[in-house]
Amino acid sequence: MTATPAWPPASTPRLFVDRPLGPGMVLTLDGAPANYLANVMRLKPGDPVRLFDDRTGEWLAEVAMATRRAITLKLAGALRPREEVPDLWLLFAPIKKGRIDWLVEKATELGIARLQPVVTQRTIVDRLNLDRLRAHAIEAAEQCDRTALPVLNEPAKLGMLLRGWPAERPLLFADEAGGLPLADVARPGAAAILIGPEGGFTDEERAQIRRTPGAIGISLGPRILRAETAAAAAIAGWMATAGDWR
Amino acid sequence: MTATPAWPPASTPRLFVDRPLGPGMVLTLDGAPANYLANVMRLKPGDPVRLFDDRTGEWLAEVAMATRRAITLKLAGALRPREEVPDLWLLFAPIKKGRIDWLVEKATELGIARLQPVVTQRTIVDRLNLDRLRAHAIEAAEQCDRTALPVLNEPAKLGMLLRGWPAERPLLFADEAGGLPLADVARPGAAAILIGPEGGFTDEERAQIRRTPGAIGISLGPRILRAETAAAAAIAGWMATAGDWR
Repeated sequence: MTATPAWPPASTPRLFVDRPLGPGMVLTLDGAPANYLANVMRLKPGDPVRLFDDRTGEWLAEVAMATRRAITLKLAGALRPREEVPDLWLLFAPIKKGRIDWLVEKATELGIARLQPVVTQRTIVDRLNLDRLRAHAIEAAEQCDRTALPVLNEPAKLGMLLRGWPAERPLLFADEAGGLPLADVARPGAAAILIGPEGGFTDEERAQIRRTPGAIGISLGPRILRAETAAAAAIAGWMATAGDWR
Repeated sequence: MTATPAWPPASTPRLFVDRPLGPGMVLTLDGAPANYLANVMRLKPGDPVRLFDDRTGEWLAEVAMATRRAITLKLAGALRPREEVPDLWLLFAPIKKGRIDWLVEKATELGIARLQPVVTQRTIVDRLNLDRLRAHAIEAAEQCDRTALPVLNEPAKLGMLLRGWPAERPLLFADEAGGLPLADVARPGAAAILIGPEGGFTDEERAQIRRTPGAIGISLGPRILRAETAAAAAIAGWMATAGDWR
């Protein structure tokens, strides 16, 4: 049983703030974060808050002043440096709203380093609300104790990504035509997982993927997985065998 | 590239029917399945349908007659025998509605054999709608090509389950206090994964789990996973290393 520090208590609210944090800093939050801390969590002066900035790590802060509209926090000290998550990217074709939100949440919880939306020939969703996806990633990072947010890339065309692919980064793609067991090809270090759209890759796309240096077709078992299930399952399988579950 | 049979086409609707199927059988469906096949899929006489009954396997059927309210199908022949999924059980504490529905869907897609809701000291959800959960499992089985539904048990108290636990079935429980890497302890054959409630197990419960013959504490990495994420990730990790992804 690892000893959990007495302070701050595990129930301490945890929040991402998009500005560099430092010792002794005093910051005032308004809008949603202020409402959450002051009105939902009902924090009072002296109450602890955990903050992370995706730059310097996680900090312990203390409520200095709280009104209904704004809350002022004073940084007490550093709790943890910024983490290094395993160097795993997820390349995924956009899927419909509820399911892609879920995918971003789960990929973040599972420790993905980078999220790369991919436009394929059968991609049905053409417009993607990156702000909404980023909000889901932030919320997931807050609750799962990450100190580093996943990088969320702008959508890119599959062909362009493949032409410029860094051969030293294995590109594990779920091949409905069958591939190698994930556990047999997953290796610690840089890697990427590529999941196709609901309709799957076209034969032309699959041929181009296979020609890409570093590409390895993998199997996720005999069942037909939804795109978001395949993505989360592949990340979990990779983390279990080559990531930081060890 | 595995050759996909020309008939029936991959787009053929796939449906679970809760009655034993056999060659030459003629069956008439009404209600939701009839509405789905006749009005949503707009099937006409002669169109193919795939049926499975969780007993004999999967069958090819042909539409004999379709009205707005009822559809009559004639079984043409057997497509596949009923599958044997890996012998993996999931013991999970009920969580709130949307997330438990999602968990049942994902566990089914990932090939779980049995779902056992567990009542723990910190379980907040006391009433569980098993019919709704079963409907989600059926829908997931239909879309992921399973020919066997997961067994959905009635909720049981953790203490009772542990006292009667079959020692020959490893009980892999996600231990927030830290455990062995899943990939190091996952073995082919009978196994079970136990995931606690959002609030975690109590110290008393954790002690009882540790005393249970066959219990093995596992680690799912350094991040704090939501209950449903931990369950899906553990199933995926187990399938990747000890299940039928190989």
